[in-house]
This record gives sequence, structure tokens and C-alpha cells, in this order.
Amino acid sequence: MIRVGIMGYGNLGRGIECAIRQNADMELKAVFTRRDPKTVKILTEGVKVYSTEEAIRMKDELDILILCGGSATDLPEQTKEYAKYFNVIDSFDTHARIPEHYANVDAVAKESGNIAIISSGWDPGMFSLNRLYAGAVLPAGKDYTFWGKGVSQGHSDAIRRIEGVANAKQYTIPIEKALEAVRGGSNPELTTREKHLRECFVVAKEGADLAKIEQEIKTMPNYFADYDTIVHFITEDEMQRDHSGIPHGGFVIRSGKTGWEEEHNHIIEYSLKLDSNPEFTASVIVAYARAAVRMKEEGMTGCKTVFDVAPAYLSPLSGEELRAHLL
Amino acid sequence: MIRVGIMGYGNLGRGIECAIRQNADMELKAVFTRRDPKTVKILTEGVKVYSTEEAIRMKDELDILILCGGSATDLPEQTKEYAKYFNVIDSFDTHARIPEHYANVDAVAKESGNIAIISSGWDPGMFSLNRLYAGAVLPAGKDYTFWGKGVSQGHSDAIRRIEGVANAKQYTIPIEKALEAVRGGSNPELTTREKHLRECFVVAKEGADLAKIEQEIKTMPNYFADYDTIVHFITEDEMQRDHSGIPHGGFVIRSGKTGWEEEHNHIIEYSLKLDSNPEFTASVIVAYARAAVRMKEEGMTGCKTVFDVAPAYLSPLSGEELRAHLL
Repeated sequence: MIRVGIMGYGNLGRGIECAIRQNADMELKAVFTRRDPKTVKILTEGVKVYSTEEAIRMKDELDILILCGGSATDLPEQTKEYAKYFNVIDSFDTHARIPEHYANVDAVAKESGNIAIISSGWDPGMFSLNRLYAGAVLPAGKDYTFWGKGVSQGHSDAIRRIEGVANAKQYTIPIEKALEAVRGGSNPELTTREKHLRECFVVAKEGADLAKIEQEIKTMPNYFADYDTIVHFITEDEMQRDHSGIPHGGFVIRSGKTGWEEEHNHIIEYSLKLDSNPEFTASVIVAYARAAVRMKEEGMTGCKTVFDVAPAYLSPLSGEELRAHLL
Repeated sequence: MIRVGIMGYGNLGRGIECAIRQNADMELKAVFTRRDPKTVKILTEGVKVYSTEEAIRMKDELDILILCGGSATDLPEQTKEYAKYFNVIDSFDTHARIPEHYANVDAVAKESGNIAIISSGWDPGMFSLNRLYAGAVLPAGKDYTFWGKGVSQGHSDAIRRIEGVANAKQYTIPIEKALEAVRGGSNPELTTREKHLRECFVVAKEGADLAKIEQEIKTMPNYFADYDTIVHFITEDEMQRDHSGIPHGGFVIRSGKTGWEEEHNHIIEYSLKLDSNPEFTASVIVAYARAAVRMKEEGMTGCKTVFDVAPAYLSPLSGEELRAHLL
């Protein structure tokens, strides 16, 4: 049994807990929280919640610690700190800062002799893998990544910061016409506006100026100004009834050519349609947690990403079983 | 530069030659054929064609030998034979005999200290990878593989063996309704007939009994009896004009559930739409040939499949470049 600890118990931490339940070779041993442990109720019977300060003294009781904090401030500190004591895995997703995070974590994990997998999940993660595989197979080609339909937490938060807004949810929606053009093999150059649409559901405070809110959303730099944006005003009841889920997904498509004169077209497409973004992300992380423990057992150390993990490590099946049934 | 030899110069061998041209770190050094080398004209200027008997004495001039023979009789002998002298790679695709082929090749490659990658391509190959990844991420779920629209060589050959048939081409076509049911997350149980349709284009010999040919095709055990089959009789001119390509493709879909009570659905879909089946297969093989050479350089030996190869080995980019641009 792989003994797992969860650091941080929000949507992602709860998703990890659910995913562990689906994997017979894994066992939840502890949940760590910055809140008062007495106030945190988890789903798994018989497992204790501890304060974060207690984690390090449990280092011999866990095969891996799964870090469920945020990429902005938690993970840049936590992953390198806990890699001193544990095999660790995170879902660090600030793409631009991955090289720096990798270097920091690698130094510590090599020193401690642990495995640390960073940036697992689906983007970065499964989407990254598909970009790598497709690009290696079709070197003469072009990549396209589309996101959605799904909830963007960052964009929802940005709307909530506008004066007069009580609640908001933003869906990122890939534009079908752009997807079709890519699938057709024409290798189109697509602008930001041509690829995605943004649809916002907003609960306004009483007496708020709706026209002004809509205008502020649509013209917000970085978040909305470069997109066609649709704004709907709804009630808090409608928000709770129709928009309480956290769906997401998207498409990674490579369109490439082969042949002596590059006369043949090929389309490789990978897509995800997810009812629960945090639970799917958690499911990817748990599979890579298994890989991390196995790689450590084989004597590997240091920081790894999905690019460095041979696929067989992810599966509970043996090499023989995989070759007989899945190859 | 990775120095490559090609063993066998049919559609696949020619595809390998084209793929090498697209990869700046690879160089074609020799083509080996069972035919009279003087009768074989290849595309790459300045590269010589040799008879198969000359291969072994060139073992120090090649970093890898790519085996382009058939799975029925060539590869079961060739891969284990040449793994004595070279890093080798094949596209052995008789799924049921993979464990035996693996064992034979592994013993030789471990003894010689070479890397031998077997069963690369897209099915087995990229499709197998996607079955593994999706199954590891969503353990509570169900896999579906659909093939086509594409030419099945085996089914086309089976029709050609019928009395009165001059030429034939068979397309395997996935049934849209079945695909939609799978994508809808209902985890349907699908019969053979519900998943694929078979469409045949047949050139009859003069005076042949068309009704009898059609009846023989539609009732042929294993190949057609379990499917809905459409038969069109066409002229040889129409065959040359409309059916000279070798397109293929397909879909690997996993539908799975997450959540404490498995209350959330997820769909992972991987699809290929290929203008040229042999050229795409060749492109996959060439990427794995790069991986084989690198793994050997790192001291690994023995037989490997796509499951054992960490993705980063496939790309000409460095780890730093991959993390900065693709993760």
C-alpha cells in the first residue's frame, strides 16, 4: 500500500481524497491543514486531520505528500520545503515560472534523495504530454490548444472585484468555427478573439449600475478586452441552482504533414470533457503519485515532470499485464 | 546525428525515409532489401541500397536499425536476430503475440546490451499509450477504441482472394451513433455491428457473378459476417482514381467517474485522422528510434515498448526547452 498525506484540504485536496478511494493500492494516512484541525471534517473514516506543523515529524509514516496549495504563493515555498523530507507532488501551474520552480525543487530533492513531481494535472499535465508526443511525431506541424467549455476561477474572481458585483462565474468557451478550421488541416493563424468566447454570469448588488458593470467587464485589460464577452445578470438563487459545478476541459490539436514533399496531412486531437476540474486534476496527480513512489523505489531522485515519467509507472498493472491487455 | 538503417523498403520503409528527412538530428545511412539492390530506387540522394546479408557487417556504422517487415513472418525472426547487433525498433502489431515477441527480443537485447523497441506505431503505439494514461487517471471507467475511417489491408486482401475479384479496397468506418453514445458518458455495451461499418469497393473480373461475390463478402466469417457491409462494384479506372490513398485513423475514448460517490463524469478522447497510414506509423517509429538511441546512451538495455519510454526521450528538444515551452 502506498501511504499518502494530503497537504491542504480545499477542492483539490478533497478531490485527492476521492481519487485515493478509487485506487486499491493507495491509502490516505493524514490530512494537513493551516486551519484549526478540529474544524476540518474529511470524508474518510478513521483518518486524522493534523496541523501543517505536524507534517515533518510524520515523515516515516508517509510514502508521498501531495501538495494541494495554490501556485501563486503556497507551492513555490512548500514543494521545495517538503521535498527535504518526503516524496512530493504538486500541480504548480504558473507556466512562466515552471523553470525556476523546477530548479529550486530539483536541488532540494537531489540532496534529500527524494522524488518531487511538479506541474502535474491536465494543463500543465496531460495537455503538455500531448503537445510533446504530437510534436515529436509530426515535426512539420502546428499546435493548437483550446480551453473549455469551463469555469475560469481567475476570470470569475476578476469580475467579483468590480464595484457592485456580489457574485460571478465566468465560462471560457472554445469557438467551434476555429476548432473546425484547425481540424480541417488548413493551419489557420487564429487571434485570441477567434479562439475563445467568454460568457459571464453576474449577480449584482442591489442598486448597482448594471450597464457600468457590463462595460467594466468587457473592457478589462488582459482578462476580457481581447475577447468577445457575453454578460448575463442573474439572481443568487439562479447562480446556486445553475452554476455551482466546476466543469472544464479543452482540446490539444496538432496538424502536421508527412511525405517526401509533405503532401499528406494528419490531425492528432486530444480532448477532455470534465464535470469536475478539481477532481480530474486530483485523479491525474494520484496516478503520478504512484509513479513517484515507484521511481524512488528504483533509486531515482530529483525533480521530475510528466515528461520524465515512463507511462508504465502510472498504472497499478504490471509490465506483463500492460503488454498483454493494453498494448 | 543519429545514423539510421532501414530494413525493408515497402510503404513503411519509404515512410521512414520521408520521416528521417523531417528530423534534423537523424540521417539515413543505408537501406537493406531482400530484392536485388540494383532494382530498388530510393528517394534520398547519396544513400546506398544493400542486400539484407550485408547488414550485420555494418553494425558499427548505424546507431539504430528500423525493421519494416511484416508481423506475420518477418518480425518474429528479424527483431530478435538483429537485436544481437543493433539497437532496433519494429511495429509488430499482432496484439495476441506481443508477450511472446517481447520475451524473445528482451532476452537477446539484454545479452547484447542493446535497446529494442517493439510494437511502436499507432495501434499498437499511440492508441495503447492513451489507453494506459486514461485508465490510470480514471480507474473507474470504460475504454472504447474505434478505428477508421480507413483502409484495412487485411480485409482488402480477403476480398481479393474471392473468385471473380480483380481488385478490392475495404474501408472500416466507425459508426457515428456509437461514438456519440460513448461521448455522452452512458458507458454503452456495444456489439461489433454497432461500432463499425465495412464499405467495400470491388473490381470484378469480366463475366464474374456479382451477386455471388457480394454474398461471399457479406457472409465471410471473422472478416465481415458480424458487420453491416456495403459492397460497391467499380471499374479499375475508378479504383485508381478514387481509392489509391491509404488513409486511416480512429478514436480511443475513456469514459470514467470521480467523486466520493462517483457522481462526476469525465470523457478523455484521443483521435487520429491520417492521410497516410504508413507515413504516420513511420513518423511514430522514427520518434521512438531517437528515444532508443538515447536510452542506450544512458546505459539502458533490453526490450521496451511505448509504455517504458519516458516522453522526453522522443523529442529533439532538451529538458529545459521542453519545460519552458511545452509544459
